[in-house]
Amino acid sequence: MEVRAAVAVAAGKPLEVTTVNLEGPKVGEVLVEIKATGICHTDEFTLSGADPEGLFPAILGHEGAGVVVEVGPGVTSLKPGDHVIPLYTPECRECYSCTSHKTNLCTSIRATQGQGLMPDGTSRFSTLDGDPILHYMGTSTFANYTVLPEIALAKIREDAPFDKVCYIGCGVTTGIGAVINTAKVEVGATAVVFGLGGIGLNVLQGLRMAGASMIVGVDLNPAKKEMAERFGMTHFVNPSEVEGDLVPYLVNLTKRRGDTIGGADYTFDCTGNVNVMRNALECAHRGWGQSIVIGVAPAGAEISTRPFQLVTGRVWKGTAFGGARGRTDVPKIVDWYMDGQIEIDPMITHTMPLEDINKGFDLMHAGESIRSVVLY
Amino acid sequence: MEVRAAVAVAAGKPLEVTTVNLEGPKVGEVLVEIKATGICHTDEFTLSGADPEGLFPAILGHEGAGVVVEVGPGVTSLKPGDHVIPLYTPECRECYSCTSHKTNLCTSIRATQGQGLMPDGTSRFSTLDGDPILHYMGTSTFANYTVLPEIALAKIREDAPFDKVCYIGCGVTTGIGAVINTAKVEVGATAVVFGLGGIGLNVLQGLRMAGASMIVGVDLNPAKKEMAERFGMTHFVNPSEVEGDLVPYLVNLTKRRGDTIGGADYTFDCTGNVNVMRNALECAHRGWGQSIVIGVAPAGAEISTRPFQLVTGRVWKGTAFGGARGRTDVPKIVDWYMDGQIEIDPMITHTMPLEDINKGFDLMHAGESIRSVVLY
Ligand SMILES: [Zn+2]
Ligand SMILES: [Zn+2]
Ligand SMILES: [Zn+2]
Ligand SMILES: [Zn+2]
Repeated sequence: MEVRAAVAVAAGKPLEVTTVNLEGPKVGEVLVEIKATGICHTDEFTLSGADPEGLFPAILGHEGAGVVVEVGPGVTSLKPGDHVIPLYTPECRECYSCTSHKTNLCTSIRATQGQGLMPDGTSRFSTLDGDPILHYMGTSTFANYTVLPEIALAKIREDAPFDKVCYIGCGVTTGIGAVINTAKVEVGATAVVFGLGGIGLNVLQGLRMAGASMIVGVDLNPAKKEMAERFGMTHFVNPSEVEGDLVPYLVNLTKRRGDTIGGADYTFDCTGNVNVMRNALECAHRGWGQSIVIGVAPAGAEISTRPFQLVTGRVWKGTAFGGARGRTDVPKIVDWYMDGQIEIDPMITHTMPLEDINKGFDLMHAGESIRSVVLY
Repeated sequence: MEVRAAVAVAAGKPLEVTTVNLEGPKVGEVLVEIKATGICHTDEFTLSGADPEGLFPAILGHEGAGVVVEVGPGVTSLKPGDHVIPLYTPECRECYSCTSHKTNLCTSIRATQGQGLMPDGTSRFSTLDGDPILHYMGTSTFANYTVLPEIALAKIREDAPFDKVCYIGCGVTTGIGAVINTAKVEVGATAVVFGLGGIGLNVLQGLRMAGASMIVGVDLNPAKKEMAERFGMTHFVNPSEVEGDLVPYLVNLTKRRGDTIGGADYTFDCTGNVNVMRNALECAHRGWGQSIVIGVAPAGAEISTRPFQLVTGRVWKGTAFGGARGRTDVPKIVDWYMDGQIEIDPMITHTMPLEDINKGFDLMHAGESIRSVVLY
């Protein structure tokens, strides 16, 4: 079938919105009509050429929501008409990692997904001339129809609005999941969140849900303060306004009554800056503080610290897709949204048709959007 | 009173065995007759001058066992005749850290202990001329009598041999505790231990106790293999005999049936080498592997890795005194020794009188001893 798609033809070039061919679903695959998709920094990371594993030409996009149109042979958990969110971290429930119950990093289709291919090693997308176009993150939501493996689709309730819950396919789940699944924050905890963009806001609301008593947000941009407070931040710190070093300032700020040391129970890096990651670790509380790396660092960048920081009890962790098992957890997060336990609407600052998708990237570059969503 | 002690007079100089003055115990303090003490790399680290926080003149030593001789005012948990092990990590059970139940790093006397002083800010040791001599790690077991805070003494059973259980005051508890308290290793786990010296051997026996199914030991010295096997090692790897990179070799070695990735559930650095610490992290299993830093790195040395290692689920931790709460846990470890659950005897390779203590340091430098113990 012919579908409309924004094709990433080469690194550093704008997307080209055009008509491409899409083959129907093969064994274990599902054809989905995408109704909405967010535009994410990860798409930009690849499109810019900074991603050393980026491949072209490809159809990017990984924050979608849509409706099942057709299922291939062997598909049992989905049927036409089901509402779904694509998962760049699939959940096969059969591989060694899934059955370990210790990680969400399903490995069943990792190799082909990284090559921009479906599990059988081929692509469903091609130009009208028949040249193959690669998939991206196994999702390729920058097309109004796309094919995905069954294990990469979370079935969600049908009353959830596509233009909002599409964000649950990435930032919402990553931020909230980092708090709930990776850090396992408890009631009364103290936390510091570095970077108050989309991921940071979702970490904030995860902390609020988990009952954290002190939620410090750190950002160089004072304009982030108002929205961050709406999502649960209790204290704002602008590093450019701190006299002296930031780490001892934050350690002192998070010192509780009776404590002689200070430091936060949990800290989160949402910046991707390796120097910030170090600060985040070092302002975690001696003896038990955990620091969670969420941001994606530039290729080749390394984190470092003195091992003394670990020997004295700090823990350095990271999270991918918030530690969420997509098919299991994403439908629950959709429920939380529909029940009003979490907010998404204020984070969707811009919408546009597919034809204007490059404007969404422009808004991201300018720092004007939290999230732009393409409506098909 | 006059006591016999090995005094560290200056960095890089041999200890001077001489007679010094010791004041009796003040409020909350206890006078202990030391019966035996191990000689540890940490003493050497300070004596050599490599420890930036080292102070002189001081009476080193922190792996002792002895008998209470006299208690100062207010001491309620100990009485003359009690057998004790000094604790360089005290357990006051009242400070913010102790009552958090989340760390063993009691902070009640941290400041003065770091300055080589008793909690009231003075030293009990002095030269016969009356010049003060500093304490060390709050323990100073290189003297046949020493004064310690009550909260820095674990009361142990009276049938335990001083010349063996003194090692529980440091290496035994550190190694076993890293497995049990910090990593919380479960039955059937896989593990890699880097460095098969005294700490490494104790990590091995901790892993055996915890029921680990694969216990890989890594050391450049093939002479370590036999003793390591006695303590539970199931596979020996000499990095100098591995073709190609060590990390992928270990990742593959620890790959279980059905797993497509490999990597150990738990890895332990017992070397203090920051490059080894990185290898230890990176051969932990994607998704859940934990790496525990035990070794003490040289001043200023830093660990580093790509944050991707954490984002894909590896956890970087450290441990001090094996996460053990000394007064609570050390008596239990003494019981394990007396019940035959753990071995110590083969690790005590040399004994000597205090007069020959510098020979113990020589044996350590030559790599001939696992542990030398001074018998008073
Ligand atoms: Zn995203
Ligand atoms: Zn799986
Ligand atoms: Zn020691
Ligand atoms: Zn304490």
